[in-house]
Amino acid sequence: MKVGAWYVGGDRCQFTVWAPSAERVCVKIVDPAERVLPMQPIEFGYWQLTEQIAPGTTYLYQLDGKLERPDPASQSQPQGVHGASQTIDHNTFTWGDREWSNLPLSELIIYELHTGTFTPEGTFDAIAERLPYLKELGVNAIEIMPIAQFPGDRNWGYDGVYPFAVQDSYGGVDGLKRLVDACHQQGMAVLLDVVYNHFGPEGCYVGDYAPYYIDKYQCLWGNALNFDGAASYAVRNYFIENALYWLETFHIDGLRLDASDNIFDLNAKHFLQELAEANAELSARCGRPFYLMAENDLSDVRVTRTAEQGGYGLDAQWNDAFHHCVHTVLTGEQSGYYKDYGTFEQLAKAYKQGFVYSWDYSPDRQRWHGSDSSDLPGQNMVVCIQNHDQVGNRILGDRLTQLVSFDALKVAAAALFMAPNIPLLFMGEEYAEEAPFLYFVSHTDPELIAAVRAGRKKEFAHFHQEQDYVDPESMEAFDRSNLQWETSQQGKHQVMFSLYQHLIQLRRTIPALKQLNKQNLEAIGLPEERVLLLH
Amino acid sequence: MKVGAWYVGGDRCQFTVWAPSAERVCVKIVDPAERVLPMQPIEFGYWQLTEQIAPGTTYLYQLDGKLERPDPASQSQPQGVHGASQTIDHNTFTWGDREWSNLPLSELIIYELHTGTFTPEGTFDAIAERLPYLKELGVNAIEIMPIAQFPGDRNWGYDGVYPFAVQDSYGGVDGLKRLVDACHQQGMAVLLDVVYNHFGPEGCYVGDYAPYYIDKYQCLWGNALNFDGAASYAVRNYFIENALYWLETFHIDGLRLDASDNIFDLNAKHFLQELAEANAELSARCGRPFYLMAENDLSDVRVTRTAEQGGYGLDAQWNDAFHHCVHTVLTGEQSGYYKDYGTFEQLAKAYKQGFVYSWDYSPDRQRWHGSDSSDLPGQNMVVCIQNHDQVGNRILGDRLTQLVSFDALKVAAAALFMAPNIPLLFMGEEYAEEAPFLYFVSHTDPELIAAVRAGRKKEFAHFHQEQDYVDPESMEAFDRSNLQWETSQQGKHQVMFSLYQHLIQLRRTIPALKQLNKQNLEAIGLPEERVLLLH
Repeated sequence: MKVGAWYVGGDRCQFTVWAPSAERVCVKIVDPAERVLPMQPIEFGYWQLTEQIAPGTTYLYQLDGKLERPDPASQSQPQGVHGASQTIDHNTFTWGDREWSNLPLSELIIYELHTGTFTPEGTFDAIAERLPYLKELGVNAIEIMPIAQFPGDRNWGYDGVYPFAVQDSYGGVDGLKRLVDACHQQGMAVLLDVVYNHFGPEGCYVGDYAPYYIDKYQCLWGNALNFDGAASYAVRNYFIENALYWLETFHIDGLRLDASDNIFDLNAKHFLQELAEANAELSARCGRPFYLMAENDLSDVRVTRTAEQGGYGLDAQWNDAFHHCVHTVLTGEQSGYYKDYGTFEQLAKAYKQGFVYSWDYSPDRQRWHGSDSSDLPGQNMVVCIQNHDQVGNRILGDRLTQLVSFDALKVAAAALFMAPNIPLLFMGEEYAEEAPFLYFVSHTDPELIAAVRAGRKKEFAHFHQEQDYVDPESMEAFDRSNLQWETSQQGKHQVMFSLYQHLIQLRRTIPALKQLNKQNLEAIGLPEERVLLLH
Repeated sequence: MKVGAWYVGGDRCQFTVWAPSAERVCVKIVDPAERVLPMQPIEFGYWQLTEQIAPGTTYLYQLDGKLERPDPASQSQPQGVHGASQTIDHNTFTWGDREWSNLPLSELIIYELHTGTFTPEGTFDAIAERLPYLKELGVNAIEIMPIAQFPGDRNWGYDGVYPFAVQDSYGGVDGLKRLVDACHQQGMAVLLDVVYNHFGPEGCYVGDYAPYYIDKYQCLWGNALNFDGAASYAVRNYFIENALYWLETFHIDGLRLDASDNIFDLNAKHFLQELAEANAELSARCGRPFYLMAENDLSDVRVTRTAEQGGYGLDAQWNDAFHHCVHTVLTGEQSGYYKDYGTFEQLAKAYKQGFVYSWDYSPDRQRWHGSDSSDLPGQNMVVCIQNHDQVGNRILGDRLTQLVSFDALKVAAAALFMAPNIPLLFMGEEYAEEAPFLYFVSHTDPELIAAVRAGRKKEFAHFHQEQDYVDPESMEAFDRSNLQWETSQQGKHQVMFSLYQHLIQLRRTIPALKQLNKQNLEAIGLPEERVLLLH
């Protein structure tokens, strides 16, 4: 069931919203010319209305003649998360990427970026201007941190509350389309980070419509989303339609599913499996592959195994263990979850098998953890030596640049491109950016602001670091996280950039590196010599 | 890790308890001769002590010099759930079942009984006296409703709080062993219903020892047991050791895992899979099979699929859908979960495939439900036309006898034994018992008693029945639930008994019925004629 407002021919716009317990639902046109238009109940608690409405019209839904709320499936929020929703006519954009057919999964070299801090402008168009730089570097895919409308204009993106709305301050719908189109015309794939495990804490009104939440499970952010309880069909549909929306309407090439272990679903068919089925249908229909890549904390082979093997059938998952091994071997850090890592044997296992915990006891988790991934294809895993979480979730937001020597950075870079998995770079890594990537938000609710501050401090208590931290609400946190492009081609930064260029070139041309064949790889850790042998 | 008190040679008794946050743990001998004996911390938060102690000694654990509590793994509670635990020497019992090697899974014909109400005496020994009757009927396995120590002496068993302790009022450890031994010597298997999804609400002290609970998930009874959080290894171990205890020490042939869908475990290896692995090891060691059969509400093929197929590897699961189909076709009931059933096509599907909901929309659950079980072997499912839940969870506890004609009862019986699955009878069904099976408890906590009364009324609100109900705390509820043996061989009761005898005889001798081959079965529902064709 398509949800939201969709033009179905000319100016005829079809509104669909799920409000199963409402007795009356209307579309309230806000601008131009305020009007209230009654919707018709259709099946499964959905309401529908098709009306002649000019694109760009703003509207709210009126529930039972009282509550007026933005559309949970709003595609545009021109006045932010608390304002009216806006209709978008997707037919007006002219695509120039007809030749594009996506890249093979195994050949992806991913560059993760945050739209707001990647460029001084903080927009999609400004990213597009940097594509020649990324081409020169050699990466062939960008992965954009979440761009669903969030409160204010500074946010990593994981506080989004309108999964279908493109953050207005980044350039909205057309800005994102222009970026994707430009990428495709330059031979680059575009991956998008999407959040299906929670809504952000400010500006979320879905609870007024329907049981989007369930109190049976507590996720990291409170009550979990309702993926397996009564009426969960519509929550599942909402997110599956969201995935298809990005892939089909925005030509996005793949999705990174944030913290998919916090999607609680004990039904016989897991949401991720249903999503993979929908994705496979779309791929067949469009004649090109789309990729689903999960962040998942469970080190569980089910994520990428096929349905016949009892799995969900996704294309890949992030293997954080690789990062943790490289990080601990280089830094010697042992606080928090790093206490589970630190040996060369583990690093060798990350290369040779993938998951480092394959039903082994994890001191940090205080339980046995993970599954044996030795028979998974290398391309089922995405690995990195830095990413937004591993940098940004440090109290100082310090990159590896701040933690190890320049030579060690080079070793880390080489380690990344030797992995028989899909490599992911975090923006700025390629030139040894020294600016931090801090945690920043721009909430407006004072109670929430206080809670974020307290929560952040609590999170870092785990790492036993006593330093003061930069207030996430401050402009300083955001400004300091901007890339310092002016340094990127200077001195050692230029040296690192050349090294990355060279390593990526090797990776894309030498068969032994290109083919991601774990079977032909031997990895031996020599802890005495602090050497990892790969051959 | 073995937990509880175990004799390791002569009168040397080894005590092991998990108390990871305690700084001091002692065994306090209560009787004879009060003494306090300090335990030693060993690995993973366990404490241990080996001491010369006569069997039958009562003891408590003393935590940090203050709290004195019964043993969570107590094997005997001679003064009930709030009293001291008692050491048991299992070496004193002489077994006479050396020839026994269990029965093939596919040949089991199960008779479910409740120890307290099956006989006037309400003991294991009294069950043993009825074995000739059961042999005459033709069943070859009894399934005993839970016998873990519960508050008072009247309880279905699902309020047990000492999973290792045999209810004292039923006859305790030796009573159960005598029953199992007698069954084996008469060629009958013994299955035991065990509860691994919660502890009962009265007399449960495990929370004083360690994080047995987790607040991340809410199960049907409140906070879920900790199967996947920090320190969950010991909770998993506790229940796995419990399973092995029944199978190895009591010669039980298989376990029925109560409401296994309420064991919340999102780890890469599900508790049920780990349990199945431990069971497979034990079977290999003992040279005979033990069976794990789950009650599971999810209609999920994973329960019995192998680990290679992404499953848990249990031997069988209850398929309630078969019951619901037979029940609704015969009674026409459509309240509560029965609204999901009622057609002959569904009944045909239950025969031909197993699960009736194979990712279909369930009106009662308001979501898609279940998985396709058409390729599962018939012996992977246990089916019934009555059981303790389906009878006892009605406000009047009325059996099918009270709901349909005598002829319809005969049809139901035939329907059961035609199923290509393992049949299960509920005690008394075989002679059309007319006494109800009511819900009864004998809690002592007044607040709890009030809560049970309120909860019970709320549960039945779902079925929209307004009749008054029998107070679960009353002796009346228990007394009225006793089998009326005096009627069993009279008039129509005798007729029904003969029919069951005959049907069981056919089932055990005719290859088409015996072989549980779904592939050779055709099931066609003819709703107009109210006929189900099986051939």
